[in-house]
Amino acid sequence: MSVLGLGRMGTALAGALLGAGHDVSVWNRSPLKAGPLLDRGARLAATPEEAATADVVVSCLSTYDSQQPVLAAASPKVLVNLTSGTPEQARGVAKWAASEGIEYVDGVIMAVPQGIGTPEARILYSGSEPVFEAQRGVLEVLGEPVFLGEDAGLAALYDLALLGMMWSSMGGYLHALALVGTEGITPERFTPMALGWHAAVGGFLTGIGTQVASGDYETDVSALDINAAGLALLVETSRAQGIGTAVPAALKELFDRAVASGHGSHAIASVIEEIR
Amino acid sequence: MSVLGLGRMGTALAGALLGAGHDVSVWNRSPLKAGPLLDRGARLAATPEEAATADVVVSCLSTYDSQQPVLAAASPKVLVNLTSGTPEQARGVAKWAASEGIEYVDGVIMAVPQGIGTPEARILYSGSEPVFEAQRGVLEVLGEPVFLGEDAGLAALYDLALLGMMWSSMGGYLHALALVGTEGITPERFTPMALGWHAAVGGFLTGIGTQVASGDYETDVSALDINAAGLALLVETSRAQGIGTAVPAALKELFDRAVASGHGSHAIASVIEEIR
Repeated sequence: MSVLGLGRMGTALAGALLGAGHDVSVWNRSPLKAGPLLDRGARLAATPEEAATADVVVSCLSTYDSQQPVLAAASPKVLVNLTSGTPEQARGVAKWAASEGIEYVDGVIMAVPQGIGTPEARILYSGSEPVFEAQRGVLEVLGEPVFLGEDAGLAALYDLALLGMMWSSMGGYLHALALVGTEGITPERFTPMALGWHAAVGGFLTGIGTQVASGDYETDVSALDINAAGLALLVETSRAQGIGTAVPAALKELFDRAVASGHGSHAIASVIEEIR
Repeated sequence: MSVLGLGRMGTALAGALLGAGHDVSVWNRSPLKAGPLLDRGARLAATPEEAATADVVVSCLSTYDSQQPVLAAASPKVLVNLTSGTPEQARGVAKWAASEGIEYVDGVIMAVPQGIGTPEARILYSGSEPVFEAQRGVLEVLGEPVFLGEDAGLAALYDLALLGMMWSSMGGYLHALALVGTEGITPERFTPMALGWHAAVGGFLTGIGTQVASGDYETDVSALDINAAGLALLVETSRAQGIGTAVPAALKELFDRAVASGHGSHAIASVIEEIR
């Protein structure tokens, strides 16, 4: 096994492989970062080519742009690409790998570095299913592997979609903290309620998905126009309390567009018509 | 007991009070909406004044603007105001109520109408604590009552903060559905993973709150600049896949501003510095 790229995540991946008793070589542009892994028994590869003599190469570089020359130099036998990027970038590497005879699977890590090697870490893969199945044993060391499909871009697509959910939820939470903070409510006081509410919101998502799938936006729960009016109150109150409005203002504009398109009496799910 | 306003929520409130054996009178601008409640034993008040002869009046009108003349006409003895609005509007009614000698508590309902009367419905109150305590028994019929403080605007502030979290999470989920939908991934296929991920994101919020409280944004998990770069990929990919970018673009701009302010190596929590 070999790991290219020793940022926080690459270091965690190499550490998990070492912990599972694998023979691990590592490469990083700045070899100083390898220190703690070498203490744990990893070998330092002087070049990407040297790292690529391993049976499987895991790439976890910061961007596809920085990854491309490294992969071209390495030309590994089996490549597990965990560098973050777009579906198009993943498909591009898959095409290059096919032309080079490199067995290829693309993956995205839905976990923080500290979660790597624990059952909470889920890693999504797409690309060659035979390669995924052949490497499943070693991939399980890193986290729970989930195979999405043969389109190498799928893992990156899921990654961005899920991270987008995370950034939205975090943005909403930070806005909420800023808003209640204007009246001296601390995160300690607000967060227990926020956590219960976040969980309750999770309970609404399945119903929204069902409505999106069917295109039937009838509701006897909560109409979009009431929610758009609520967003207007949130923007107004945020402004009155002296905080920024970036997070709610963007949502208000989107909800307002959906109301203007005739979805006022429909469910919130109908907002997707203004996105797609 | 009397309920002013028979939208979906007002009807649910009156229904829960009837179900608990209370004597309930109802008033609505359009009396036709009262039909199902009258069948269940409610009495129709011809005017707000008539409704206000009840010991406690629950107001659930669509807006504060529509509520004001109704309350002025009714002049109840005890007013539980569940109309949605801003903290300033709630404080305005509290001031008016005090000047009229009306016992007043403001409340917001963190539930859908179908949840009213069940243990899942949580209703947040602020204003007069003695009034809240005196009415606790009847308020418990509607949902779990939580008292926030004597500032009558607190319930509305929490309401908007929590609803903002909901709209953000739903916006993020709808964007995700639109994005994976461009490659034929259905809500049925995507949602189970989205639900697990939403729950995992909930696990990150407490740590963010702790960082906001301390102002210590050091991180060994995930730096803001990596997340801002991810948002750029999400915007780019959304555009490439032919869908709207409203939801991620607003977050990207906010994260970029925080990076420009020097928070690139800090945790995501530092984004609050650009909101407040």
